[in-house]
Amino acid sequence: MSDTAWMDQIRFDAQGLVPAVVQDAVSKEVLMLAYMNKESLQKTVETGQTWFWSRSRQELWNKGATSGHTQHVQSLSYDCDGDTLLVAVKQDGPACHTGAYSCFYRTVMGDNEAKSKSAEDRFGPLSRLEST
Amino acid sequence: MSDTAWMDQIRFDAQGLVPAVVQDAVSKEVLMLAYMNKESLQKTVETGQTWFWSRSRQELWNKGATSGHTQHVQSLSYDCDGDTLLVAVKQDGPACHTGAYSCFYRTVMGDNEAKSKSAEDRFGPLSRLEST
Repeated sequence: MSDTAWMDQIRFDAQGLVPAVVQDAVSKEVLMLAYMNKESLQKTVETGQTWFWSRSRQELWNKGATSGHTQHVQSLSYDCDGDTLLVAVKQDGPACHTGAYSCFYRTVMGDNEAKSKSAEDRFGPLSRLEST
Repeated sequence: MSDTAWMDQIRFDAQGLVPAVVQDAVSKEVLMLAYMNKESLQKTVETGQTWFWSRSRQELWNKGATSGHTQHVQSLSYDCDGDTLLVAVKQDGPACHTGAYSCFYRTVMGDNEAKSKSAEDRFGPLSRLEST
């Protein structure tokens, strides 16, 4: 989609940021949440890779630029009130800087941990093979 | 899990809030993102239903209390740096106040719209039957 008029519907917060939920397009596991400003959203759309605004480093951040764990955008959606993005990606390697498949590896209620582990079992080896 | 020591690891922001991604535990579609403060997180854990802090109304909000579109918590996870929650739910009816299955019904890149529609086709009628 070359027409980016939809970007005017995104409601960036007082810091100029919007949360972006990143989901594995294949397993549908939620991998991470990070923040985009307008420039990183534009770069994400232009390059087909995820760009975020790092709140800790206060700089643009192309996920995977140093780690090689790039996220290839398969779809980008925004919610009913335009203040959250959902990005479905093909994830090279693990999404989490800890090496975990997903950043949400700690579960305090229910059995999501078991499910995430099984998703790693299924997709982790494949991702690692593809990254070599 | 009756031990709630893990709550000390959740990093609420300057407004006392943490974003909570809500995912359908069955279809794995991302349904919505809302914010929890410590009290709403505690109520979510205690009741097994989602409670949020409404930033627009500035009040605690038990999702579904008025609409009947309750979210039954199947699992609750938090991310590597403790500043985002992931809640997998069994969703009664649509998650979005617009009546859409998911709040993320507008897709500007890729084919997520088609996929969301197919998830609605599969799970929408079942949810509606269960809600009657």
